[in-house]
Amino acid sequence: MATKSKSSSKKASKYVYFFGGGKADGNGSQKPLLGGKGANLHEMTRIGLPVPPGFTITTEVCTYYYANKKTYPKVLTEQVNTALAKLEAVTGKKFGDRQDPLLVSVRSGARESMPGMMDTILNLGLNDETVEVLAKKSGNARWAWDCYRRFVQMYGDVVMGVQKVGKDDHEPFDEVMDHLKEEAGVKEDTELSAKELHILVDRFKELIQKRTGKEFPQEPVKQLWGAVGAVFGSWMNDRAIVYRRKYHIPHEWGTAVSVQTMVFGNLGDTSATGVAFTRDPASGEKVFYGEYLINAQGEDVVAGTRTPQPIAKLKQEMPKAHAELVTVCKTLESRFKDMQDFEFTVEDNKLYMLQTRNGKRTGLAAVRIAVEMVDEKLIDWKEAVGRVPADSLTQVLAPIFDRKDRDAAVKGGRLLCKGLPAGPGAASGRVVFNAEDAEARAHKGEHVLLCRVETSPEDLRGMIAADGILTARGGVSSHAALVARQMGKICVCGAAEIVIDYTARVMQVGGHTIKEGDFISIDGTLGEVYEGELKTAPSEVAQVLIAKTLDRKQAPTFQRFEKLMKWADKIRRLGIRTNADQPDQAANAIAFGATGIGLCRTEHMFFEGDRIYAMREMIIAETKEAREAALKKLLPLQRDDFAGIFRAMKGYPVTIRTLDPPLHEFLPHDAETQRETAHKLGISPEKVAERVAALHEANPMLGHRGCRLGITYPEITEMQTRAIIEAAIQVRKEGIPVKPEIMIVLVGFRGELQNQLEIVNATAKKVMEEKKTRIDYMVGTMIEIPRGALCADEIAKDAQFFSFGTNDLTQTTLGMSRDDSGSFLPHYQELEIVKRNPFEAIDQAGVGQLMQIAIEKGRKTRPDIKLGICGEHGGEPSSVEFCHRIGLTYVSCSPFRVPVARLAAAQAALKEEKAGKTREIS
Amino acid sequence: MATKSKSSSKKASKYVYFFGGGKADGNGSQKPLLGGKGANLHEMTRIGLPVPPGFTITTEVCTYYYANKKTYPKVLTEQVNTALAKLEAVTGKKFGDRQDPLLVSVRSGARESMPGMMDTILNLGLNDETVEVLAKKSGNARWAWDCYRRFVQMYGDVVMGVQKVGKDDHEPFDEVMDHLKEEAGVKEDTELSAKELHILVDRFKELIQKRTGKEFPQEPVKQLWGAVGAVFGSWMNDRAIVYRRKYHIPHEWGTAVSVQTMVFGNLGDTSATGVAFTRDPASGEKVFYGEYLINAQGEDVVAGTRTPQPIAKLKQEMPKAHAELVTVCKTLESRFKDMQDFEFTVEDNKLYMLQTRNGKRTGLAAVRIAVEMVDEKLIDWKEAVGRVPADSLTQVLAPIFDRKDRDAAVKGGRLLCKGLPAGPGAASGRVVFNAEDAEARAHKGEHVLLCRVETSPEDLRGMIAADGILTARGGVSSHAALVARQMGKICVCGAAEIVIDYTARVMQVGGHTIKEGDFISIDGTLGEVYEGELKTAPSEVAQVLIAKTLDRKQAPTFQRFEKLMKWADKIRRLGIRTNADQPDQAANAIAFGATGIGLCRTEHMFFEGDRIYAMREMIIAETKEAREAALKKLLPLQRDDFAGIFRAMKGYPVTIRTLDPPLHEFLPHDAETQRETAHKLGISPEKVAERVAALHEANPMLGHRGCRLGITYPEITEMQTRAIIEAAIQVRKEGIPVKPEIMIVLVGFRGELQNQLEIVNATAKKVMEEKKTRIDYMVGTMIEIPRGALCADEIAKDAQFFSFGTNDLTQTTLGMSRDDSGSFLPHYQELEIVKRNPFEAIDQAGVGQLMQIAIEKGRKTRPDIKLGICGEHGGEPSSVEFCHRIGLTYVSCSPFRVPVARLAAAQAALKEEKAGKTREIS
Repeated sequence: MATKSKSSSKKASKYVYFFGGGKADGNGSQKPLLGGKGANLHEMTRIGLPVPPGFTITTEVCTYYYANKKTYPKVLTEQVNTALAKLEAVTGKKFGDRQDPLLVSVRSGARESMPGMMDTILNLGLNDETVEVLAKKSGNARWAWDCYRRFVQMYGDVVMGVQKVGKDDHEPFDEVMDHLKEEAGVKEDTELSAKELHILVDRFKELIQKRTGKEFPQEPVKQLWGAVGAVFGSWMNDRAIVYRRKYHIPHEWGTAVSVQTMVFGNLGDTSATGVAFTRDPASGEKVFYGEYLINAQGEDVVAGTRTPQPIAKLKQEMPKAHAELVTVCKTLESRFKDMQDFEFTVEDNKLYMLQTRNGKRTGLAAVRIAVEMVDEKLIDWKEAVGRVPADSLTQVLAPIFDRKDRDAAVKGGRLLCKGLPAGPGAASGRVVFNAEDAEARAHKGEHVLLCRVETSPEDLRGMIAADGILTARGGVSSHAALVARQMGKICVCGAAEIVIDYTARVMQVGGHTIKEGDFISIDGTLGEVYEGELKTAPSEVAQVLIAKTLDRKQAPTFQRFEKLMKWADKIRRLGIRTNADQPDQAANAIAFGATGIGLCRTEHMFFEGDRIYAMREMIIAETKEAREAALKKLLPLQRDDFAGIFRAMKGYPVTIRTLDPPLHEFLPHDAETQRETAHKLGISPEKVAERVAALHEANPMLGHRGCRLGITYPEITEMQTRAIIEAAIQVRKEGIPVKPEIMIVLVGFRGELQNQLEIVNATAKKVMEEKKTRIDYMVGTMIEIPRGALCADEIAKDAQFFSFGTNDLTQTTLGMSRDDSGSFLPHYQELEIVKRNPFEAIDQAGVGQLMQIAIEKGRKTRPDIKLGICGEHGGEPSSVEFCHRIGLTYVSCSPFRVPVARLAAAQAALKEEKAGKTREIS
Repeated sequence: MATKSKSSSKKASKYVYFFGGGKADGNGSQKPLLGGKGANLHEMTRIGLPVPPGFTITTEVCTYYYANKKTYPKVLTEQVNTALAKLEAVTGKKFGDRQDPLLVSVRSGARESMPGMMDTILNLGLNDETVEVLAKKSGNARWAWDCYRRFVQMYGDVVMGVQKVGKDDHEPFDEVMDHLKEEAGVKEDTELSAKELHILVDRFKELIQKRTGKEFPQEPVKQLWGAVGAVFGSWMNDRAIVYRRKYHIPHEWGTAVSVQTMVFGNLGDTSATGVAFTRDPASGEKVFYGEYLINAQGEDVVAGTRTPQPIAKLKQEMPKAHAELVTVCKTLESRFKDMQDFEFTVEDNKLYMLQTRNGKRTGLAAVRIAVEMVDEKLIDWKEAVGRVPADSLTQVLAPIFDRKDRDAAVKGGRLLCKGLPAGPGAASGRVVFNAEDAEARAHKGEHVLLCRVETSPEDLRGMIAADGILTARGGVSSHAALVARQMGKICVCGAAEIVIDYTARVMQVGGHTIKEGDFISIDGTLGEVYEGELKTAPSEVAQVLIAKTLDRKQAPTFQRFEKLMKWADKIRRLGIRTNADQPDQAANAIAFGATGIGLCRTEHMFFEGDRIYAMREMIIAETKEAREAALKKLLPLQRDDFAGIFRAMKGYPVTIRTLDPPLHEFLPHDAETQRETAHKLGISPEKVAERVAALHEANPMLGHRGCRLGITYPEITEMQTRAIIEAAIQVRKEGIPVKPEIMIVLVGFRGELQNQLEIVNATAKKVMEEKKTRIDYMVGTMIEIPRGALCADEIAKDAQFFSFGTNDLTQTTLGMSRDDSGSFLPHYQELEIVKRNPFEAIDQAGVGQLMQIAIEKGRKTRPDIKLGICGEHGGEPSSVEFCHRIGLTYVSCSPFRVPVARLAAAQAALKEEKAGKTREIS
């Protein structure tokens, strides 16, 4: 900004920047003034690339235009004329010339790309005379007349405003064209002859005259000013305004207009046009990559009417141009320090560069390019860390479908439907509709995909057994999605088109009937569901770190990933923990770089094997004594669970959350399982059903759960504390240090924490006395309801740490159930009432505000209070940055999100460092 | 406080205050120094009442005692000795005297009464010698020995610490007594002879010796110091500490100790003891009221072993004492300016006053006493306003059960169970278990009570038809309770012992089986449920104001009520509105003094008559067009509803809330009604069932409701706006002014309000153009989710008013569903984790904090923003005071709560005025 205002005050009267003949008035750093496209055209000219010459009218003219009732600065005409004269001199062509007429394109270009939002006019300079010259010169009258009719049509539409009026109006130019094709007896535009196109041009001109009362201008300079005005005008069209609002682009920026000599890739077999990348945008490999078409215009490559050729083939067809392009790649990267996505045209064997910009890439590619560019000394390591979108790492970590196989499936009509991409990766397997079937088939070695309307903790064993999960209902934070991410399971959820009939064991989707046992495939990265089996491959990183089936030396992707992670760790300050309930999850998280467990849920443990029956016995118990007897059965199991986790964590801190979900979640809800449970427990099925009914809640999310359970049933907290302390003592005896942190959940009142704290401390003391030893442990609380945050000063009197449970905090602060939000949240995003799904990215203005209140109040009471986050947001980059900014100690996320969080934390630190430097300078 | 610190600095060394012989060192204003009981003893002495002489050791000694390792100030012994000498002089009795021994009681007495919390010792001064004197003097050896054995037992327990040790130990004195009774072959204590009691005293002394190694002291002065120490010691016993914590009594206050000459009401037929009130505490009538027993001790009256006589009978039995007591009443009231509750003893025809304090009273009595005392010029009108607990007005307004009938029912074992008193008043009727039966029977003229596990809007018509509502589940803010209060319906909810079998149409409770059609009675003030029919009477106030069946001149209770309300209105600043959906409710509220509707819910309207089918048609509609067609049917109905309310409100503002509840609440959930609905709508029952299933939500409270409905189905908001504006125009044409305020509900994001505001304004504009007129209306929002409060600055940009929906704000802020809180909230109150049910009284620290944040932020954006509350808290006194304090414009509550809110608002203003005066002075 400083640069810009300086230059604008110095060169207040320079509105037109010329480029061409190896020189350019502007350069690549002037995006605010010349627009992204413009600045890069100047830059490419400067570094000697073959750019068709032209000039750029600055964004300041656009600002002036709107500030001054759509008029131009007085000096503009003169500057444009000068530039035009220079352009004619450099090209040797002249506007309206009968020998060599100058044709130009007029394009918009804002500081940031706004694809398709504003207007472009091509072939400007054509008129009734120059079209004939062009026809003669090219020896291709049809082509010349086609260029002219396109120009008249585009100009008539964009500049002169010949557009359909009402809903029922036809596109006026199309209507004329259709009439003509009927007369000529042809179906395609391309079948029209030069003569017929000539007639078409005449009719277009008539149409313009009729609709606007004005004639199509034959004078090229007049055409030019009309086009410039139209481009500036398009900055304020509805589409552009909406787009800018959506992407937070200020209206004040304005657009620049670039006027550039036309070149043609469709002048015969010595001409071509193409789109290319300096490296492979899918894999990141440093190879010249792209596609082209001989004798074609730029739009043809994109339109897909002809199949483009891979760029390698150009080496054979146009060896000179190919060689030049290879050099261009090097030049571009050494200048722009990033992988470039560029457009080129070969006109009669001569190469022209029409555009360049930083190329979009997959996560895999992003990592490879960033790391290799450091190796190549193009960028430094900090630049590399900042350049890889943290989220894109999930793609590096997830197994994926074979691309060809997937495309074939789509083409073959086997794409059944789309849902929410909830658990990245790809999985194929046989369809099952309940947990038992999933387990049974998995036990037989089959790959299965569990398909449910929605999932609950009851389905957990089935989810563990399945390769992937597909649900018809539920958002990205639904139970299915949550479990999926924590376990690194592939999951598509909320695929609303699916209709499941549990009884018939069949589902209907998009006209297909899928029975139990049929194969389907789901892509959790894209949210797609296919019929049949698609090929998959596990990620290389997982093969090295988790499966350990691959040697790191054999794993270049892993090596790059690791390099990037090391750089990230060098700069990040935020600690990274993981949400893990089981030793293998914990081990995975450590492999991925976690240094602690931020959330160990204790309820999932109760679903394993037969222990669910002990849990159910406890819940159905009618007296404290009966409850205690059942809890006694659970104690050794839970102690072993904790011991396993402590061992896996090798001395890293482990935050264990006391029992959280409402008890009815542990009870069976269907008659059959109720009978089975009754049989196992030796009671009547009616008794089970009665208890299920008694525990039913209108709003379980706001019901009898969390510490409310531990308060009404203190013996549960007692058992859990005993299990934790006994496990800790046991594991420490084995020589492994342990750091248990007991987290009391759903605290809103200080009294709740005090109540539970008393039980925890008394039980711990008792166990330590029994075992004649001491274990250091902490007790803290989850801040996950607004009152907890608002009264954090009170709660901090007893809490040694806070962990923000942003899942529930979001639900309560927004009054929005994540399971039910699917019926309106997508609509909210469309209407832009919310920018992002608040269950994915922290709602900083609301939930974030409460977090800040809690931090401020908590620190007032206890300045050294440890602060973490254990909601699913802990692995989402913008949320990680927010957590860094508000001063948390750590974030905790699912194991497979740990690398993402590490990178996001590093980027947050980098951003802060940069902001600090900027502050220092100014 | 100023008085106290002054006196303590001046008389630093005065620790003992003597009273007796018509003079007293202290007075009634010295409660902090002498304790409540002590100060009043001094005061009664001063004003010439016959108080047995004695002295008070001040609370400062208690404070000193704890600050100095349980020692006394040095001068204390001397001061006590002096007081003792004076006491002996005044009474002519002497400690340990063989002619006329002095016996005293030693009692604790803090600034505020802490009934039963601290220790008391009676008959101190008895020993092996004086017991004989007493026996001879009274001619009643058995009595003398019984006094002695009681004293030894009490002293041994309280002072010497002979108490049971472990869980399995027996009460040691009881064990000794039981042995003796066995030996004597008697069952009751009273059957023991003087001789046997003598043996008992000896064994008690042995027990003391054995357990403590110390002898029971024979020396009265030694006994006295032991007793004083025990009383001070009891200030810090566990019970007392817990009690003070509960009632927020500071530990620093300390207790005083009063030592008072014993008098005996059990010295024969010329002696008596009693408890009396200066006015009737039930009705408030100015009559001498109370009960007594001839030849008895104070505890006998309370214990209920003998049936006490009504005080009127004393006139015959002891005319002199009765006449004296009548005078005492006058003296007490002219001094204490309030109805007094006092204890007296007649010893051998001589009256003694033992205690006096302000008497507790019913709501009815509170109003009568306050108003009549103003008439009698005992107090001024402000004092009267401050003296009636606002909540107690509900008793004045509610119909009640005939007291005798109720007591007979209880005695007859017909009290079935207790639940939460949710809708004050009393109702008898036949049991029905569903809305249709309720309507059918009510239509036939039967009185019915609707009994449900819990209620939903579907039950509404049944609730309207029923005289009362009884639920097995749900708290005081459950749907049943909410509707009950708004309609002034009698309701007992959450009566957990009830088990309802809908299919069999029967309920089980407390061993009884109640079938449909059986009579029961419910008392919504006490929360009691009885078998059979109990007599009721409607409140007089309601007869005058609502039913208009009673002339105000014939209604003294009404007249007093009205007087009090007028005084209240003179000082209150808070506006009072009402929550009403129907014209008759609105009219009732106006009769009760409301000046606006703060919450008109629009959903209840959709349940009336056949319109529920149009509503269901709208919900089941699959296209916008079909939905609009159904809404068109609802439009005229809703317009008429609004018109009716506007007419009833006569120009007072009406805040109308747009549709709030999730749509599935309007659909039938049982197969039969689904079939019926399907038939009415001409679709298949499967279709209805399918829609019900599709709309099912995990947490409907946090689901697709409120403005989320209006955003996804804008045509609903459109219809509602049209109905409001059309109704307003129509009613204004009739000459009645209208002030509609449209309230958008459940707003958390500014974009939500903007979205709805656009629809409201566009629709209003359209209607006004159609009708060629203008109507002023406001648009505001309900602040009922934390995000709405936290982002109030943003939301206030578009909201002209805020109304705090504290029901939902409490649910979301506390993460606590009111419907589900019954399973843990009572436990929380027992454990004192919450002081009061947050659905009754605003949780000021949490929810209140959010309200304050919202007010501050809202005013920052819009300084003149109108602020109200429309949660059920708007009628709860402590919440009304809070609303006054944080500066709301008005509170809104159910019609029958309007008088309560008026009085509470006045009291809040009074409190503020007093605080202001105190500030001025200091």
